[in-house]
Amino acid sequence: MADRFVYHCTLRWSDLDAYGHVNNARFLTLYEEARVALMFVGARAHGVDSFAEGVVIRRHEVDYLRPVDYALDRATVETAPTVRIELWVEQLRAASFTVGYEMYDGELLISRARSVLVPFDLVRQVPRRLSEPERTFLLGHVSQAAP
Amino acid sequence: MADRFVYHCTLRWSDLDAYGHVNNARFLTLYEEARVALMFVGARAHGVDSFAEGVVIRRHEVDYLRPVDYALDRATVETAPTVRIELWVEQLRAASFTVGYEMYDGELLISRARSVLVPFDLVRQVPRRLSEPERTFLLGHVSQAAP
Amino acid sequence: MADRFVYHCTLRWSDLDAYGHVNNARFLTLYEEARVALMFVGARAHGVDSFAEGVVIRRHEVDYLRPVDYALDRATVETAPTVRIELWVEQLRAASFTVGYEMYDGELLISRARSVLVPFDLVRQVPRRLSEPERTFLLGHVSQAAP
Amino acid sequence: MADRFVYHCTLRWSDLDAYGHVNNARFLTLYEEARVALMFVGARAHGVDSFAEGVVIRRHEVDYLRPVDYALDRATVETAPTVRIELWVEQLRAASFTVGYEMYDGELLISRARSVLVPFDLVRQVPRRLSEPERTFLLGHVSQAAP
Repeated sequence: MADRFVYHCTLRWSDLDAYGHVNNARFLTLYEEARVALMFVGARAHGVDSFAEGVVIRRHEVDYLRPVDYALDRATVETAPTVRIELWVEQLRAASFTVGYEMYDGELLISRARSVLVPFDLVRQVPRRLSEPERTFLLGHVSQAAP
Repeated sequence: MADRFVYHCTLRWSDLDAYGHVNNARFLTLYEEARVALMFVGARAHGVDSFAEGVVIRRHEVDYLRPVDYALDRATVETAPTVRIELWVEQLRAASFTVGYEMYDGELLISRARSVLVPFDLVRQVPRRLSEPERTFLLGHVSQAAP
Repeated sequence: MADRFVYHCTLRWSDLDAYGHVNNARFLTLYEEARVALMFVGARAHGVDSFAEGVVIRRHEVDYLRPVDYALDRATVETAPTVRIELWVEQLRAASFTVGYEMYDGELLISRARSVLVPFDLVRQVPRRLSEPERTFLLGHVSQAAP
Repeated sequence: MADRFVYHCTLRWSDLDAYGHVNNARFLTLYEEARVALMFVGARAHGVDSFAEGVVIRRHEVDYLRPVDYALDRATVETAPTVRIELWVEQLRAASFTVGYEMYDGELLISRARSVLVPFDLVRQVPRRLSEPERTFLLGHVSQAAP
């Protein structure tokens, strides 16, 4: 079983909503940044270009455990506050796969999420099966949520 | 059983991402607009002000069935394209409730979602029970997803 | 001199930032919606498709005169609050043009802006001159800021 | 004359619009991040807390010189692409001041901007003069745009 992929996602002051917390819809954007790092940039480094152009989202689930502040006192003039996102492949099927995520503020778990993704043939506009290189790349990231 | 609450949500050109479709994370913002209309504006019209200040999101689930375009050909110079969001109360518990949603482009179902919401005591920073006026308001919107 | 083009732009609760007002950067998005209505949708209705694909922004100026709230008390369950954006063509040159805007909340002027736009040849990736149909369309919207 | 303040702003894939470039309105959000780093975090480190709560934007000007991509090939799995924002105080008056900015992609100048900011008394809801600590802090960042 592989280690989790870890991404440090920089928060923006504009992620805050009128309640002064990172807006709940914005969490999906933060998870998206981590997924882009793994599936666009990371896969590309393994010679797999196809995720960036041919995968669609079928489903998201997000659990919110704690609010996230911008935390001026933890920012520095060089670095905005970050959250740590850990992600992994939970399920791998012929024509879809599931990514699991956890978001941490230091050691504090603040959110869990799960996305179902479907490889897509953009030319013919139909779902397609995972290619062998895609499958091999994803297998290297199969892991499980913490118990 | 009550009718569903219907909200016509105006799309923005900036809702599109680099794929030219409404970004998947943005769907939560569109659902949020519909929820605000029901729970902030609608509840307020019934004398219930407390949702706007004291409810937090515990969980979201979103299913994506079809992509949404900005659809220049359906826009007019006076009106940007809209999607129709139908929402209802699915479950009502002592200290939480569930809102169900469907998003339509004309007659086409494009997404389903569900949110678990928790009344919150902002002063003491703890979850709280639904008040009687809140419960009465929500009971008026209890319905079910289409079969 | 032509009348101004008028666009009623729907606000979203998510336009608010941590100060509880529509975020200042978001104003450009609201102005963008009005510009899209005129230059993508409106021009298209006159047979001019080329703005949607071949115009880039060269400069924006925005003046902020008053803050904008989401204004729950002016929203209805069917309609979120709106601002009225009036826009017009201020200057028309061979290879660029300037759009002026004013944003109103009822009769209250809340912001003024100006954008310089440059027609662009996307295939050759160079600026280009305005075509005759584009020029004719824009001439129909030449007006001036209020004194 | 002081050195410029330098902030490395992380781009997000969601900053891209349907043209595949960082959206022009989003530039104001990137400049905002740099301004927050200087005026909220940096000033706070000098004992000046008042900017975070009592400054409003009076005007923005932005010039767009080159488009910005997400640049997958320059991202790493650990780090999303960044732009470098340099900012400085251009003018300092009794009751307002002007911040100048330049945005760089490596050595390439991609945008210039300028913001006029006004200290604000949030309790009385009126503009106010700069306090002495604020003035001292800003004086330490007075510089000029490159010729």
